[in-house]
Amino acid sequence: MNEYLPGLEGVPATRSNISDLDGIKGILTYRGYPIEDLAINSTFEETCLLLLDGRLPTRAALDDFDRQLRRNRVVKYNIREIMKYLPATGHPMEMLQTAIASLGMFYQGDECLTGSDMCQDLNYVHNMSVKIIARMATIVAMWEHVRNGYDPVAPRKDLTYAENLLYMFSGEAPDPLYAKIMDACLILHAEHTINASTFAALVAGSTLGSPYLVVAAAIGTLAGPLHGGANERVVEMLEQIGSPANVPAWLEDKLSNKEKIWGMGHREYKVKDPRAIILQGLMRELMDQRSGNMSVMFDTALALEAACEERLAPKGVYPNVDFYSGILYREMGLPPDQFTSIFAVARSAGWLAHWREQLGDNRIFRPTQVYAGESVREYVPLDQR
Amino acid sequence: MNEYLPGLEGVPATRSNISDLDGIKGILTYRGYPIEDLAINSTFEETCLLLLDGRLPTRAALDDFDRQLRRNRVVKYNIREIMKYLPATGHPMEMLQTAIASLGMFYQGDECLTGSDMCQDLNYVHNMSVKIIARMATIVAMWEHVRNGYDPVAPRKDLTYAENLLYMFSGEAPDPLYAKIMDACLILHAEHTINASTFAALVAGSTLGSPYLVVAAAIGTLAGPLHGGANERVVEMLEQIGSPANVPAWLEDKLSNKEKIWGMGHREYKVKDPRAIILQGLMRELMDQRSGNMSVMFDTALALEAACEERLAPKGVYPNVDFYSGILYREMGLPPDQFTSIFAVARSAGWLAHWREQLGDNRIFRPTQVYAGESVREYVPLDQR
Repeated sequence: MNEYLPGLEGVPATRSNISDLDGIKGILTYRGYPIEDLAINSTFEETCLLLLDGRLPTRAALDDFDRQLRRNRVVKYNIREIMKYLPATGHPMEMLQTAIASLGMFYQGDECLTGSDMCQDLNYVHNMSVKIIARMATIVAMWEHVRNGYDPVAPRKDLTYAENLLYMFSGEAPDPLYAKIMDACLILHAEHTINASTFAALVAGSTLGSPYLVVAAAIGTLAGPLHGGANERVVEMLEQIGSPANVPAWLEDKLSNKEKIWGMGHREYKVKDPRAIILQGLMRELMDQRSGNMSVMFDTALALEAACEERLAPKGVYPNVDFYSGILYREMGLPPDQFTSIFAVARSAGWLAHWREQLGDNRIFRPTQVYAGESVREYVPLDQR
Repeated sequence: MNEYLPGLEGVPATRSNISDLDGIKGILTYRGYPIEDLAINSTFEETCLLLLDGRLPTRAALDDFDRQLRRNRVVKYNIREIMKYLPATGHPMEMLQTAIASLGMFYQGDECLTGSDMCQDLNYVHNMSVKIIARMATIVAMWEHVRNGYDPVAPRKDLTYAENLLYMFSGEAPDPLYAKIMDACLILHAEHTINASTFAALVAGSTLGSPYLVVAAAIGTLAGPLHGGANERVVEMLEQIGSPANVPAWLEDKLSNKEKIWGMGHREYKVKDPRAIILQGLMRELMDQRSGNMSVMFDTALALEAACEERLAPKGVYPNVDFYSGILYREMGLPPDQFTSIFAVARSAGWLAHWREQLGDNRIFRPTQVYAGESVREYVPLDQR
């Protein structure tokens, strides 16, 4: 019998070809391609197809995939009506789990296979992946309007995935640099080996239910504060600090109390997270475009970044992807409590790639337990207790 | 590094005190008490509290718990309105995942903690468990009416959990034997060590999100045809067979083609599943009450049971809990596509007991993978592919 390791730490739970991570060298690859190369040269659309199919697509395949993505952006008006009955105070991740779970109900039979038929039908698996990835962004952005009492902004077919996501939030054609930043953020968040939400997708997927059930399970797992949500906390933290001048004293205080500093360090990386380096570059581009006229929060973030580099980098602790994505999303005007939902939009590509891989060689997840409870004992009637 | 075992088969994923299973001897215990004793002497309410708390309650504790369960049966009318926008053709398990996911949105802040606060607050964990168990039955029964175009039947506080569940389906005070059967079925389905849905609850719970997210993840996993749903298939199979006279030829055909017979055999039990023995007894009681005037389907099931005992029992294959619960639910007039939802109602107790145990000694689930993909390779621009 295998050893019991809490959280299955270090226990291999799947054999996978999708992504690989070398935390010592700071290398993250999707299907063998370093994340830096993808962030600079690829698009979210291409990265999705790469994750799903395992290879960089030809132009024809990419065009076809992109067309399918654009065509599937619209969601049924029932979804909007359902949102109207959800309280505006609810968390967007709970809304997202609700909406994705409900989607499967609209597509019984033809569209929504379950069971072993599904495993054999690669076309089905591909089409479902396209539809879910396409609809994720629409649902997330819809909620922003509905919860504020407005009709949602309909998606536009003439925009890229990243452009359309920003457009559906703001109702305006996005600044090209914003779209570039969002595209990079989506690429960088699309996949990250076997984390808790991806693992939940594997477990749920292994019972061969519809992919909506599977993605909803993954969303429920990403929503927990130990998993998603760190970039939202970064913004809260920066608001607390208030201004660049407060950074040194605040940091000193945190370090001496050994408290957590959000957006610093990463369990898997001993060097600077390669995703953080890319976002840092994009942050500089944004500063240049605005000739340095940034928000106080942005300046506070820069001051914290510099102070942390000085104090923490020698210990191998660097600002991570959440630190930069938090600041960038905020600077682009996105609401902090939607940051995890945007993470989920991107990660849906990874979840669905793992779902497909799981179906290709499926075995239901049924680990065992170390039973540490009572041995067999006799029932005591209520009046004798 | 631990060995890679597909589906984590035999790999311990948690240390647990909740239930134990000896498949060789055919013993299943909840907190040390054999399932037979609980099915005969206990109630679903008491069994829930036993699973959650780890001990048989005093009368005062049980009364208090029961009062809380009764008080929390009502759900907000928004849930009903949301159901009206869900297509009647959708599967009840997808509805259930949707509705449970949405519930968390209604209770932000005070009621719905997340993160480490939650782990410390046993009162909170207990209260949430009560509320979710109480609401599960209401939601499942509501859908039966809403999908057929009728207003749901409001829950009654003066009935037991099992009585009220049947009442909310039929709108009529249930036959006492039906209530007894339903109570036993709920007890028997409440918990079964680490199966895929319970495991999904652990994984989702380990990121410290709200219990609604966690239970929704578990529902999404139970919904897959490899996990829940076998009792629904039993009924389909019996409809196919059609009558007792057709059983011998049908069985011969299945056996010679080595096809699956639903409701026969269980991966974990080498002897007859103790839960099946209890339900078999209740089935005989129901026959006695009706002086043998049962449906054709019931008679077909009896003929199949007898034929299987003769042909399969010598090989250690017996009718399992799904076989009997499928027939019993059908005989009580419950719709087959709701069988898995009723399973989920019962199993919510087990999921929440495991959620509580997980919070008591939490560690995020982050297993590793055997990477079998491409090594680092160079990105090829689109026009060079």
